[in-house]
Amino acid sequence: MPPLDDHALSDVRILDLSRVVAGPYCTRMLAEMGAEVIKIEPAPAGELSRGAASFKGGRSLYFVQQNRGKQSVCVNLKDPRGIALVAELVPHVDAVVENFRPGVLDGMGLGYERLRELKEDIILCSISSFGQTGPLASKPGYDFIAQAYSGMTSMIGDPGEPPALPSAAIGDASTGAHAAVALLAALHRRNRTGKGERIDVSILDVYYAYHDANVHVYSGTNGEVVPTRAGRYYGFACPAGVYRCGDQYIVVMGMLHHWPDLCRAMGREDLIDDPELGNDRSRVKRRDDVTEMLEDWLGQFPDVHAAVAELERFDVPCAPVLSIAEATQHPHLRERGTVQAIDDPVHGPVEIPAMPIRWGELPNQPPIDSPTLGQHNRKVLADILGRSEADLEALRDAGVLLEKEV
Amino acid sequence: MPPLDDHALSDVRILDLSRVVAGPYCTRMLAEMGAEVIKIEPAPAGELSRGAASFKGGRSLYFVQQNRGKQSVCVNLKDPRGIALVAELVPHVDAVVENFRPGVLDGMGLGYERLRELKEDIILCSISSFGQTGPLASKPGYDFIAQAYSGMTSMIGDPGEPPALPSAAIGDASTGAHAAVALLAALHRRNRTGKGERIDVSILDVYYAYHDANVHVYSGTNGEVVPTRAGRYYGFACPAGVYRCGDQYIVVMGMLHHWPDLCRAMGREDLIDDPELGNDRSRVKRRDDVTEMLEDWLGQFPDVHAAVAELERFDVPCAPVLSIAEATQHPHLRERGTVQAIDDPVHGPVEIPAMPIRWGELPNQPPIDSPTLGQHNRKVLADILGRSEADLEALRDAGVLLEKEV
Repeated sequence: MPPLDDHALSDVRILDLSRVVAGPYCTRMLAEMGAEVIKIEPAPAGELSRGAASFKGGRSLYFVQQNRGKQSVCVNLKDPRGIALVAELVPHVDAVVENFRPGVLDGMGLGYERLRELKEDIILCSISSFGQTGPLASKPGYDFIAQAYSGMTSMIGDPGEPPALPSAAIGDASTGAHAAVALLAALHRRNRTGKGERIDVSILDVYYAYHDANVHVYSGTNGEVVPTRAGRYYGFACPAGVYRCGDQYIVVMGMLHHWPDLCRAMGREDLIDDPELGNDRSRVKRRDDVTEMLEDWLGQFPDVHAAVAELERFDVPCAPVLSIAEATQHPHLRERGTVQAIDDPVHGPVEIPAMPIRWGELPNQPPIDSPTLGQHNRKVLADILGRSEADLEALRDAGVLLEKEV
Repeated sequence: MPPLDDHALSDVRILDLSRVVAGPYCTRMLAEMGAEVIKIEPAPAGELSRGAASFKGGRSLYFVQQNRGKQSVCVNLKDPRGIALVAELVPHVDAVVENFRPGVLDGMGLGYERLRELKEDIILCSISSFGQTGPLASKPGYDFIAQAYSGMTSMIGDPGEPPALPSAAIGDASTGAHAAVALLAALHRRNRTGKGERIDVSILDVYYAYHDANVHVYSGTNGEVVPTRAGRYYGFACPAGVYRCGDQYIVVMGMLHHWPDLCRAMGREDLIDDPELGNDRSRVKRRDDVTEMLEDWLGQFPDVHAAVAELERFDVPCAPVLSIAEATQHPHLRERGTVQAIDDPVHGPVEIPAMPIRWGELPNQPPIDSPTLGQHNRKVLADILGRSEADLEALRDAGVLLEKEV
């Protein structure tokens, strides 16, 4: 697995102490753009996600998905010699990425001040649930915990019922992307000024930034309007939301200037300028009637794809609600490589979501694998730190280094 | 409003043709890191979002939130002289950001090949719903349309009921962040190699990448397991989800190694190793029983904050489900600046979500305003293109340039 020597970030080297998902998502992005990512994994179990979602040979697909192209160095982080090895790598890297709970990195003797002693212009990118500062900073967090504090959970699900939790890492993944933005911006500045930087990105801040309208609607009306969840509907217009189409579901956006098109599709031109239904404000008030009319009409089609085809004939934005199976098999997602077929060294062929950037000139989906535990112990310690075979053997014997086949 | 002359991207200049939310979110990030963003707005109405969510003086807060620090140049894009002005700016910028439907930029005479003629190493960052390629590429899209095709919508809401739509731009904002990653990586490469690049980022690809487990669980089991939505619960463990706490809601993550802590908090140490409830697999099967027991216990507290305090005493990860109002008033979000108080030139004081990156050395929340329409016509055309007052006056008279007070 050679490094990608002519990709966007081929001259960048990252020391990656992160685990599970927000941090690894960030460094997967960097690795897929050519950065050399040295992933430090704690002996003996390796990074936390290696324990999740294994379906073959004890190799976690959760780990495989988020760790493509990284170099695994497995070190006993409870042994001072293990920490010393990590510290010894710092002068050789451009940036450190970590997502421990705030304070843990300091406790390991690898806090920002120490990193700066080791390399004056180091960039430290810290990712956390709540951020490095503030009264919640030290609380244990999961994606859903930060989501609840951000107000986002309250905006998902039926009003009057408990909110729903999206079954996906919509906060973690995006926080990883925001961290990559910050890291690349700091690197740009370092190249210009020679100065390092400390970055603080949190899942809570990212979730809160998803509120494209909710916060300023609340603030701009001095609290008179408090946006709340609207179930299967987009709350500000109608029809806009998820509708039944026989026993399937369809998203129809028939509001605003799409209303006349929808009326034409339904053969109800008489409603285009109807005093009761001719504008979004009145349609929102009569949402149940509009839904009933639309679902009655949708019920005539043999399936959701026939309904989509007919609506598209009239330029009404719409989409079938695809299951994971249907999305993964959809020709568009396959042709674009949104669904990425990989050939894992342990699992063999398997499909995962691709890193979502496509290039015109640079290679998309470069041939990189996810590492086995400690796969690059020798390479990294010999090539970068100049350690001899005998040194490596001694560290292995002392339990400071570890290698496994999965 | 001086440019931020010592921030991370202070030497970067962006030509921004984007509108509404994914593109403007991207360029807001860049502007808040010091980039000079020249935002081209079409005369006479300006960028689309100027028509949304106005609460005072005809100035849209939706626009204000996403366009901080940008320079507005308002040009008639249906007039060849308007297009010529935009083209004339290209040699002076590092990158162009746009989110028209694929093909529209070419139709305007500003496609990638033309941009390269104007500046050989230009970076073009295109954002779209479905991407620049593939059978869906030319379809009209909204966040929710791409979401439905990604399989994400199917993973939100109660099973057996129509899926729920999150009331926030969770795809748009994140797609903007991913686009910024790609743009900064391409800029890094250009500085090293002198080569430009064409970038293709889509809301669909980003939504699909949010599936941290769903896709590989489906693929890794050869389709035997098709993940589906799980309502208010995290589907793979128990208890994990949203629970009733009197008439409020709380997120409790009492699964895995947190179960014994939760048992202790509830005074039910007898259940720690219970054969029926001692592990997640069996608890998932008896989810209704676990929920009932937990909610009975939660119902004893005077409010959700008392329940959170008690659970935290036993180290059980949990959070109150905050409304938009509660999140916006929360001391943590205010102390960190997650809630950003701005003083808009038209609206005056108002609160919006901050751009979610915090710096150690660089200024956070720099003093930048969102522009009025065409506010920087003179500055950009005089300073960068060397146009005279008389030229500007003639262009204004010809309807090629426009300025407004909001």
